[in-house]
Amino acid sequence: MSSFAPESKGVGSDSDASSYDAEDAVFFPGIDKIGFNSSAGHGETMVYRQYNPSEVVLGRTMEEWLRFSVCFWHTFRGTGADPFGFPTLTRPWDDGSNTLANARRRLRAAFEFFTKLGVKYWTFHDRDISPEGATLEETNKNLDEMADLALKLQNKTGVKLLWGTSNLFANPMYMNGAASNPDAHIFAYAAAQVKKCMEVAMRLGAQNFVFWGGREGYHTLLNTDVRMEQNHLAAFFRMAAAYKKKIGFTGNLLIEPKPKEPAKHQYDYDAMTVIAFLKTYGLDKEYKLNIEPNHTTLAGHGYEHDVVMASAFGLLGSVDSNTGSPDLGWDTDQFPMDVKNSTQVMRVIIEQGGLAPGGLNFDCKVRRESTELRDMFTAHIGAMDTFAKALKVAAAMKNSGLFDKQIKERYGSFSEGIGKKIDEGTTDFEELEAYVMGKGDPVAASGRQEHYETMFNTFL
Amino acid sequence: MSSFAPESKGVGSDSDASSYDAEDAVFFPGIDKIGFNSSAGHGETMVYRQYNPSEVVLGRTMEEWLRFSVCFWHTFRGTGADPFGFPTLTRPWDDGSNTLANARRRLRAAFEFFTKLGVKYWTFHDRDISPEGATLEETNKNLDEMADLALKLQNKTGVKLLWGTSNLFANPMYMNGAASNPDAHIFAYAAAQVKKCMEVAMRLGAQNFVFWGGREGYHTLLNTDVRMEQNHLAAFFRMAAAYKKKIGFTGNLLIEPKPKEPAKHQYDYDAMTVIAFLKTYGLDKEYKLNIEPNHTTLAGHGYEHDVVMASAFGLLGSVDSNTGSPDLGWDTDQFPMDVKNSTQVMRVIIEQGGLAPGGLNFDCKVRRESTELRDMFTAHIGAMDTFAKALKVAAAMKNSGLFDKQIKERYGSFSEGIGKKIDEGTTDFEELEAYVMGKGDPVAASGRQEHYETMFNTFL
Amino acid sequence: MSSFAPESKGVGSDSDASSYDAEDAVFFPGIDKIGFNSSAGHGETMVYRQYNPSEVVLGRTMEEWLRFSVCFWHTFRGTGADPFGFPTLTRPWDDGSNTLANARRRLRAAFEFFTKLGVKYWTFHDRDISPEGATLEETNKNLDEMADLALKLQNKTGVKLLWGTSNLFANPMYMNGAASNPDAHIFAYAAAQVKKCMEVAMRLGAQNFVFWGGREGYHTLLNTDVRMEQNHLAAFFRMAAAYKKKIGFTGNLLIEPKPKEPAKHQYDYDAMTVIAFLKTYGLDKEYKLNIEPNHTTLAGHGYEHDVVMASAFGLLGSVDSNTGSPDLGWDTDQFPMDVKNSTQVMRVIIEQGGLAPGGLNFDCKVRRESTELRDMFTAHIGAMDTFAKALKVAAAMKNSGLFDKQIKERYGSFSEGIGKKIDEGTTDFEELEAYVMGKGDPVAASGRQEHYETMFNTFL
Amino acid sequence: MSSFAPESKGVGSDSDASSYDAEDAVFFPGIDKIGFNSSAGHGETMVYRQYNPSEVVLGRTMEEWLRFSVCFWHTFRGTGADPFGFPTLTRPWDDGSNTLANARRRLRAAFEFFTKLGVKYWTFHDRDISPEGATLEETNKNLDEMADLALKLQNKTGVKLLWGTSNLFANPMYMNGAASNPDAHIFAYAAAQVKKCMEVAMRLGAQNFVFWGGREGYHTLLNTDVRMEQNHLAAFFRMAAAYKKKIGFTGNLLIEPKPKEPAKHQYDYDAMTVIAFLKTYGLDKEYKLNIEPNHTTLAGHGYEHDVVMASAFGLLGSVDSNTGSPDLGWDTDQFPMDVKNSTQVMRVIIEQGGLAPGGLNFDCKVRRESTELRDMFTAHIGAMDTFAKALKVAAAMKNSGLFDKQIKERYGSFSEGIGKKIDEGTTDFEELEAYVMGKGDPVAASGRQEHYETMFNTFL
Repeated sequence: MSSFAPESKGVGSDSDASSYDAEDAVFFPGIDKIGFNSSAGHGETMVYRQYNPSEVVLGRTMEEWLRFSVCFWHTFRGTGADPFGFPTLTRPWDDGSNTLANARRRLRAAFEFFTKLGVKYWTFHDRDISPEGATLEETNKNLDEMADLALKLQNKTGVKLLWGTSNLFANPMYMNGAASNPDAHIFAYAAAQVKKCMEVAMRLGAQNFVFWGGREGYHTLLNTDVRMEQNHLAAFFRMAAAYKKKIGFTGNLLIEPKPKEPAKHQYDYDAMTVIAFLKTYGLDKEYKLNIEPNHTTLAGHGYEHDVVMASAFGLLGSVDSNTGSPDLGWDTDQFPMDVKNSTQVMRVIIEQGGLAPGGLNFDCKVRRESTELRDMFTAHIGAMDTFAKALKVAAAMKNSGLFDKQIKERYGSFSEGIGKKIDEGTTDFEELEAYVMGKGDPVAASGRQEHYETMFNTFL
Repeated sequence: MSSFAPESKGVGSDSDASSYDAEDAVFFPGIDKIGFNSSAGHGETMVYRQYNPSEVVLGRTMEEWLRFSVCFWHTFRGTGADPFGFPTLTRPWDDGSNTLANARRRLRAAFEFFTKLGVKYWTFHDRDISPEGATLEETNKNLDEMADLALKLQNKTGVKLLWGTSNLFANPMYMNGAASNPDAHIFAYAAAQVKKCMEVAMRLGAQNFVFWGGREGYHTLLNTDVRMEQNHLAAFFRMAAAYKKKIGFTGNLLIEPKPKEPAKHQYDYDAMTVIAFLKTYGLDKEYKLNIEPNHTTLAGHGYEHDVVMASAFGLLGSVDSNTGSPDLGWDTDQFPMDVKNSTQVMRVIIEQGGLAPGGLNFDCKVRRESTELRDMFTAHIGAMDTFAKALKVAAAMKNSGLFDKQIKERYGSFSEGIGKKIDEGTTDFEELEAYVMGKGDPVAASGRQEHYETMFNTFL
Repeated sequence: MSSFAPESKGVGSDSDASSYDAEDAVFFPGIDKIGFNSSAGHGETMVYRQYNPSEVVLGRTMEEWLRFSVCFWHTFRGTGADPFGFPTLTRPWDDGSNTLANARRRLRAAFEFFTKLGVKYWTFHDRDISPEGATLEETNKNLDEMADLALKLQNKTGVKLLWGTSNLFANPMYMNGAASNPDAHIFAYAAAQVKKCMEVAMRLGAQNFVFWGGREGYHTLLNTDVRMEQNHLAAFFRMAAAYKKKIGFTGNLLIEPKPKEPAKHQYDYDAMTVIAFLKTYGLDKEYKLNIEPNHTTLAGHGYEHDVVMASAFGLLGSVDSNTGSPDLGWDTDQFPMDVKNSTQVMRVIIEQGGLAPGGLNFDCKVRRESTELRDMFTAHIGAMDTFAKALKVAAAMKNSGLFDKQIKERYGSFSEGIGKKIDEGTTDFEELEAYVMGKGDPVAASGRQEHYETMFNTFL
Repeated sequence: MSSFAPESKGVGSDSDASSYDAEDAVFFPGIDKIGFNSSAGHGETMVYRQYNPSEVVLGRTMEEWLRFSVCFWHTFRGTGADPFGFPTLTRPWDDGSNTLANARRRLRAAFEFFTKLGVKYWTFHDRDISPEGATLEETNKNLDEMADLALKLQNKTGVKLLWGTSNLFANPMYMNGAASNPDAHIFAYAAAQVKKCMEVAMRLGAQNFVFWGGREGYHTLLNTDVRMEQNHLAAFFRMAAAYKKKIGFTGNLLIEPKPKEPAKHQYDYDAMTVIAFLKTYGLDKEYKLNIEPNHTTLAGHGYEHDVVMASAFGLLGSVDSNTGSPDLGWDTDQFPMDVKNSTQVMRVIIEQGGLAPGGLNFDCKVRRESTELRDMFTAHIGAMDTFAKALKVAAAMKNSGLFDKQIKERYGSFSEGIGKKIDEGTTDFEELEAYVMGKGDPVAASGRQEHYETMFNTFL
């Protein structure tokens, strides 16, 4: 999840947006439901070649494994504005106004998009779908109205809410932090905002609720008390978990790590940093992680690293399936198009038995130069096919048994004798020294990295 | 702490090394004890301008605050070899041989160096000071002999051992990890090595014992079970803590984070990652951290970040006071020469009341192009003056009260009313929402970063 | 130079902006002309401690050496919006409208700021100072009106135009490039825009004209012909140089390198890349470089590297004196606050005899959290003092003769014998081989890096 | 090309190396010539699945397109030593000695390897294949002897020399540079070394001669005159080109860019930097570039960027086909295993009509943990299959005409009217302004990046 500053990005179009107000308005004329055709020609990019929702892989349908979700913020509120340029993405139904009428058009366009694309989940921030009012009461009222429409559209289309989240970063009041703000009044405001958003998410049947702390961090240590700020952050998460229980919300609470941007340093740097935080404050039973690989690479890790670590520590809740450019130092939120990277992610997901109630949320935005409505489809299709192919490759790897077998052999010495005692915690330095004195010097075995890499390539 | 591969770096000299065998041999002829002269000329770099050991700052002597330590590996075993070139640093007393005689000469040269430089602490790896033998028994015997000499030299000079550590990375057997190796036999060997080294360190009065896991990590996830490897790592640390208690070693156990290099990913990535590990395995009462800023910057953080975080979480044990080049992606272990960076570190140290029993260890190496014996002195002098100046600046900042006061005001809202309730954990989302509804929207206050930066500059 | 997307950043304030319409309106009430007081207290950040314009250093006044300039875009059009949040910086005179009245208020506020700060130069983009109209004619007319006011204010205050530049990146039409756009129509538009802007800059007495190619680059090579795009870029620069001559504009033309952001790759990556381009197309007599250190560090170099390289190749025209955070991968345009870095820049400027007609332009923005009007002053003051101090340090280094002498000695072998013949190009491989065979193997001398670093520190 | 420090990396083995002295000694027993089998099982990594040398693609055989080369330094002199550890790669024929006998064994092993692998080219540094003697004469004599053997083995096996190069970085004398050394004596030594190596390369029928300037750069600007050093570098390259002509060597001279490592900054930073250098000194007719993608990514570019740029400017001579890890900041010289990256390279090579007389040289090393002899094969096989697959994909893309057609359309406006005049340089700012005034504002077309990415994926 990442950038979204709704109002400033609102941009109108020259066409008459109100012509889309009718309930039966068509937002994407000329585009039908995207079909599956494994033998489509190379030039065709409005068709699935790999993603066949009902195809069974390792005992489940593709749809069950992949649980794709479209995010509302990038895809329906993104305007292509960047720090160097004005909006480029004008949508005919969006008049750029901060009105409920405009918000309704966007939401109906979104559900048409979800349906034509064939995804079953979506995600949103409170402030994406609903305009802020003059007061918090009015803002909440707007949100309720939009939630009514969302619920109606969900019921009509069968599309479900993967997760909701509060935008605690766009409003200027949050510039120095939301839950970590030096001002208790702002902390309180953030609490009130999350409270409302969690209620709405619950009403919409959200399967998770996500926290991304884009302003929870520091820009300079010269004016910051990092421990006090983290204490407040923990207090906030404690209250959120308590409120979840109080209202009976049964979805998972997820924290999304990101190392930096917008802040110079963000407290939720990466998976292990969040785990340190959760463990320190006794919150590790209440929260899991939503991992975004573009954030992982910004933290200096390999693409799949945080997915692997979160899963290894039993805390992988969901994945924001996007990518960045390895040569760029900021979050580009690109559509994932690399089968090799996606396969690494799918291997982990298969290994832990799936992601549910989490899913693969496309926290991705079309390039600001991709200005056509078709580009919105092409981008999602390309990414979904990438992950569908990755699922098939990962399943083939699993089915072959080759990796499992070779890795098991590699660690075989821990299945017996002294290795087993190490594993079980029933030995000590003295026994180990005696063991070595008796047995002599060990010799390390080849790690065979290039063999594993080549073997991997044979599955692609 | 970082690179050291003793044997391969051994390099001889054309002079007759054995002429240094006499107990009264002088290794640095023509160089006297480095003096203090605050008004020395600009071109003079063999004199202290800032570091005056007995000068009192904030109620302690500089020597007490700074606790400088010279590392044996870089300064007496470094040869200037790099992945692209042969050794450049030839020392007249070092014939490049792997003999005890050569080891003794090096150690005696080191204590002359410590003494002439005027530092009171040193650090070593087991394999730095003592050659490996054909068997572990022989290796241990060699280490005992060298420890005898070290003890004698310590007693003679008054120089103390800040910490010892085991080199668990240079021997080829550790290429796939030491405590995280897939082979239990190698795990056992590492245990035996640490056991012995801890005994020796204790005998030498070490104030700490450090673990740096240069090979504990992965190169490719395709052949690795990360959770099993971390379980083994935790088992290892548990046994080390148990053995410490058993033998009555009272120094601190410290883990040193590093994100990568030599491994693609190292499990002890940064301070928060190590904290996650310690908390997950219940080891956070047994271990603290030894922070090296060059590792911190390689992990993508600001120079002082990990020092700040470790201290904020009560786990800052010691500091490897070096630096890197921000434009380089590997560990250069340069001498710290930037007063601004060092001041940020000293502010933390002052704030937590000092580093003891830890210290400021110069895990630094002269550039491979700095081939003269004088360069060894100049480098340490420049770094010590940098930290001495930093101590004085940090103390002036503390004495002025300006930063403390302005930061206290910044967080003032948490001292009373709703803020105090948040701090104390006695409020909840509902009360906070009611508070906001009653009070209206907050407005964020200026963070005034440039003011703080400029104020900082006025102290430099 | 960098980000600016004027319209989207326009943000209003609650106060009545029109109250600033009067010609004698005061925009910064309560702030007097910033004075010089070398012994001001630490907490005071609205005073110069180092920058004393009339103080003579190495035969010139500080003002002559430093030629400080305030940029209009960040300081008077920046709103604090970032990809994750709305504007935070509201100025009481700015109602957020795209009107000429608003533009006039901003410009008059700016000249009051320049005057109170005590800088003698400013810089702007065409679109910063003047709103775009419905057609190019109207846009040009607006620009002319604003230029009239600028000229009047320049004459009244004595503040001069260091350089002007065209914003060829914010308008959506430029999303795929301006001079490198695949569409010739857009190329033509960019040409027309620069033509007009150059005329205006000339009228305002600009001493330089700058080109920053933020959209000249690529996002993916899959849709790009890089050579054709660079050919067009060269054609554009040729026409600009021709038009300069035609109208008699005598200022320098400058290209500003930046490696990436917003584009994935920008053709003007760094100083050497621009030099390659200029040489390839025979443009190196017509253009010099405007170096921004924050761009230099994003290209993977040390802070001062591109300043050094541009000067070494005789092409350093001007400097955008800002900084970034070494741990961040995007352009933060922070105020330069590090004396060490600035000294490295000033050494080059002294060495090449000054920067005129270029200067030190503060292409810097206050943090979006620095929301007070005072922060605008504090930030510039801190940066100016940093460079003033740097000038004094660099001058002291020069006056001492220490660096010059030691470097001269280091390269001494090229002053005579075989070295001189190499320098003069009068020898060849055969003679050199014979020389070595006769003379034997050379031994390299210590580079003494730590000595130089320590010597440097003694001047700070 | 990159790291190699031959002597220090020499490492012996326990077996009796002299048993390999016989002319018919077999170095890789149990390994036959690697065959082609497109339907081999997933677990098999000692077989080609993609690389079928005689298969015709776009009118040439795979062998002609790919011109694979094995480098001698990594594959036969690499020992697995790294800055943190001792050698791990022991070869039974290598006794670690610096003798000619050992050198001969290594060379014969290499030619058996080339033959069994089925590559037709090899590359070497002078110091890889031949030990340094006590004097330059002796060193040259050794080199001649080894060249005799190499010639014999080349003739016997049909393997050819793609290029030779001088190691101007490993010897301590070069620590401050070779051609850019502050000492003219060392410059002369480097000249003598290259002179000899070029003669030997010519005798062996080298098709190119490469220069990699690992020590040509700086570590600190405080002791460096960058322009004088580059002047010397240019003088050196001028003499090399003159000597080439004098002896009638007809191969290409190539410079290999690298941004940093071992130096903090290397003068041959990237392709454009080298082009700037060549153009500045008038050497662009004499030299082309040898591009190594692992160096390209270290310079902050995308994997294929420098290949694209060098080719676009007509200067792509050869490719060191390796890869790095995008999350690591140093040169890992890994075997290229990513078909997507390799396809981007092959598209350029196809576009420019092939690489000859250059080729795809595997400047790659097995991981230090890949200790088996089979790993040497597996690594090369995996990489060759990666490039063979990439060739087929790139050819399919070419054959489809899809990319060519869509890109041609994208730039279509430059084929006629005002666009054509821009291209031909027959218009100016005034005409362009008039054109825009007449035609109105342009609108940018979608760049359709995700469409191109998805279309690319359909070929993989």
